[in-house]
Amino acid sequence: MTENSQEFTHFNEAGRAKMVDVSKKPLTERKAIAEGKVYTSFETINRIQEAKIEKGDVLGVAQIAGIMNAKKTSDIIPMCHPLNLTGVDLDFEINVKDNYIRIVAEVKISSQTGVEIEALTAVSTAALTIYDMCKAVDKGMEIDEIRLLKKTGGQSGEFVRETE
Amino acid sequence: MTENSQEFTHFNEAGRAKMVDVSKKPLTERKAIAEGKVYTSFETINRIQEAKIEKGDVLGVAQIAGIMNAKKTSDIIPMCHPLNLTGVDLDFEINVKDNYIRIVAEVKISSQTGVEIEALTAVSTAALTIYDMCKAVDKGMEIDEIRLLKKTGGQSGEFVRETE
Amino acid sequence: MTENSQEFTHFNEAGRAKMVDVSKKPLTERKAIAEGKVYTSFETINRIQEAKIEKGDVLGVAQIAGIMNAKKTSDIIPMCHPLNLTGVDLDFEINVKDNYIRIVAEVKISSQTGVEIEALTAVSTAALTIYDMCKAVDKGMEIDEIRLLKKTGGQSGEFVRETE
Amino acid sequence: MTENSQEFTHFNEAGRAKMVDVSKKPLTERKAIAEGKVYTSFETINRIQEAKIEKGDVLGVAQIAGIMNAKKTSDIIPMCHPLNLTGVDLDFEINVKDNYIRIVAEVKISSQTGVEIEALTAVSTAALTIYDMCKAVDKGMEIDEIRLLKKTGGQSGEFVRETE
Amino acid sequence: MTENSQEFTHFNEAGRAKMVDVSKKPLTERKAIAEGKVYTSFETINRIQEAKIEKGDVLGVAQIAGIMNAKKTSDIIPMCHPLNLTGVDLDFEINVKDNYIRIVAEVKISSQTGVEIEALTAVSTAALTIYDMCKAVDKGMEIDEIRLLKKTGGQSGEFVRETE
Amino acid sequence: MTENSQEFTHFNEAGRAKMVDVSKKPLTERKAIAEGKVYTSFETINRIQEAKIEKGDVLGVAQIAGIMNAKKTSDIIPMCHPLNLTGVDLDFEINVKDNYIRIVAEVKISSQTGVEIEALTAVSTAALTIYDMCKAVDKGMEIDEIRLLKKTGGQSGEFVRETE
Repeated sequence: MTENSQEFTHFNEAGRAKMVDVSKKPLTERKAIAEGKVYTSFETINRIQEAKIEKGDVLGVAQIAGIMNAKKTSDIIPMCHPLNLTGVDLDFEINVKDNYIRIVAEVKISSQTGVEIEALTAVSTAALTIYDMCKAVDKGMEIDEIRLLKKTGGQSGEFVRETE
Repeated sequence: MTENSQEFTHFNEAGRAKMVDVSKKPLTERKAIAEGKVYTSFETINRIQEAKIEKGDVLGVAQIAGIMNAKKTSDIIPMCHPLNLTGVDLDFEINVKDNYIRIVAEVKISSQTGVEIEALTAVSTAALTIYDMCKAVDKGMEIDEIRLLKKTGGQSGEFVRETE
Repeated sequence: MTENSQEFTHFNEAGRAKMVDVSKKPLTERKAIAEGKVYTSFETINRIQEAKIEKGDVLGVAQIAGIMNAKKTSDIIPMCHPLNLTGVDLDFEINVKDNYIRIVAEVKISSQTGVEIEALTAVSTAALTIYDMCKAVDKGMEIDEIRLLKKTGGQSGEFVRETE
Repeated sequence: MTENSQEFTHFNEAGRAKMVDVSKKPLTERKAIAEGKVYTSFETINRIQEAKIEKGDVLGVAQIAGIMNAKKTSDIIPMCHPLNLTGVDLDFEINVKDNYIRIVAEVKISSQTGVEIEALTAVSTAALTIYDMCKAVDKGMEIDEIRLLKKTGGQSGEFVRETE
Repeated sequence: MTENSQEFTHFNEAGRAKMVDVSKKPLTERKAIAEGKVYTSFETINRIQEAKIEKGDVLGVAQIAGIMNAKKTSDIIPMCHPLNLTGVDLDFEINVKDNYIRIVAEVKISSQTGVEIEALTAVSTAALTIYDMCKAVDKGMEIDEIRLLKKTGGQSGEFVRETE
Repeated sequence: MTENSQEFTHFNEAGRAKMVDVSKKPLTERKAIAEGKVYTSFETINRIQEAKIEKGDVLGVAQIAGIMNAKKTSDIIPMCHPLNLTGVDLDFEINVKDNYIRIVAEVKISSQTGVEIEALTAVSTAALTIYDMCKAVDKGMEIDEIRLLKKTGGQSGEFVRETE
């Protein structure tokens, strides 16, 4: 990238972080779906369902957090390209048998790079928001199985997670 | 969006917030113009005109605030799509008879969704900045008549506010 | 602030913007309450009440927007001091006779400077969010009467807005 | 919070979200430690160790992401109080037997509210960064066991997660 | 932009700041390269090379800072257009004879406006980060020669800085 | 920080970046003053003085940029502690003999850590803003001599730069 000379020591030529150049890639329609789970106590999951958490409507706040953070993923994840998402949607399922909330996020765009990390960021920050809203009554919650379910569009083609 | 089962209770299927999918809409040239007013005391409007506010040049700061916040509207308004605005301009009129400052903002873009909310955000944050710069001498100021004047481009066509 | 010389022309000594020095002011308990209104059509106010806005739960999203933007007021308003707010709460009243939503925000802190602008920012951005959520069905909405209702704490003492 | 009248319908009095008031709580020394894991393929974990990921030094970037996002947790998590953290540190362990990276984050502050969510945000965003850096070679990675390990300071006292 | 009347005084028609309208300009491939230098003491440059700075890997952190801030240049520089950069890369050279670190940043995009200021922001914030990481041992550091080296694409054509 | 075992390889124990713990340091009154220069062509410096730059009032915009970025230094510089600044002021001197603008920034706070990097960030971003406002007429500008002039408060005591 720059001229060399005896006086210079180049830093970290191999391992250096970069935001990889995608300027030659074509625009394609892309979509990514990710999921994750928040395991809580039996009491907490009931309070969430019955809207008895002092900080307010837990899943309503988590939904908005997921959408807002998906939009600013490139400010949260250092090497992630800035993108103007065209659609973000989150869905929550409350499992009252095993005491967890499943979060699913779907993100859409037409761009030169994919939106997997945006969908995962939506799920992760929605999960953290659930933790934050409920932590006064349950510090033992755990966030698990954050992973990509499906991705379409782009040169690497379609990815669909195999069911276990 | 996800498979169902007896164990799951779906949350808020109807009322849930989403950033609506605009990925199928065509790119069109769009423009929006919005206005708003800040009513002050007689003394305050004179101080602003004579540049006698301790915090500095009131309208110069308000102009920059309006432009900067128009650019980050999607970080301020939760369900608003991120957009790369191509032009933002603000204009201020000082009405020395009725003691108000009228703010007009114009925003331009070529995109899949409109920029009404960006123009309104420019006006609102410019108005708040005027309040902030003058609040040491006038806590009774009031912000009024923030509204869309005109919008062109997009499927819903042109909107022009009727004069009263 | 800096030494002078014949070659220098000082810029804008009088009118220049600054974030005024509050480092000598004592920490005091402070609170501010602000209000504002969003006027809509009859149809829109009914849709909001009946949760029939496509983008989702209008007032739930507006509430979160108000709280989140109150927290980052110093990033929105240029000369505003950064502050760590200790409490933010918003309340909405739907007036079905005159077709408006009244927003009231209350902000608390212990600090060297007041939180009036934080309360007004909460109200303004909640109002903009209501506009954004409903603009697909009603572009004629108007935001009015954004103003400070009450302020306590600090050297300038208590401010209470006189009722009209 | 505001006066009532026959014309008003109060919105969501019970379930409404708020940033709870902590202004009466005393300042105390607080610390929180959280952990999480990123499970990868055998090949990916080796590439990370041998610094053969094209986007750069995976764990170095993840460390900085964790620290930077801990600092802005209140901008990511809606009802979280803004806080000026006094210390953030992250540690990574590579488990070459079970193919995972364990992330541990420790956050410190003297404040009126705790930093559990800041420590969990550091872990989650570091995990997402690892995913982002490696996703070109491994889309099947999974983030698991994000949870609080320990918390000291504050009225609710010490929390230590029981070992399994 | 708005109608006139005797009662109005227009503010600052000539000198007012605006984000200039680029909506009529064509999309072109653009690239900008900028450089800058941080002069340190002999001892500091050795500590950096030997990784003996307490705050961590100085150039690794500076690299990430440069990339992250290039992405959000429009939030840092008031009249700068928001852009979705497609590539950012930074390179560092340590000059052990004259005790300085040279920073070179390259930014790419396809857009209606150039990325010179993004490349300069990457260099400047990387330089500030080096200062921040080393200031505990060397407060006398100096940042110099921040300037554009090359720019291609756009109506104003190519710019190449003449060598001295 | 975490327990060890044969299966784990610790990453980067020595060189890893951290936001150093300042929780045991006392609060003291602190101040920092920094400077920098933007060298332009003869024509550009005259245009700035005569307010003939199309983008608007160059130094007015630069002043606000410096103040706003000083406030968010911890979001720009990775290992920098978040701080609530109590005062920020910038001063500009136009040198019409040697064709440069000298920027001086002063930052104040009462805190556990100093504000040198905040003052330098104010100067650097004000300089970048001058570049951005004038780049349409002068791509050859150069930013130089960004450095700390004075620092008071804190354990390391006073620093005053020696005049050359």
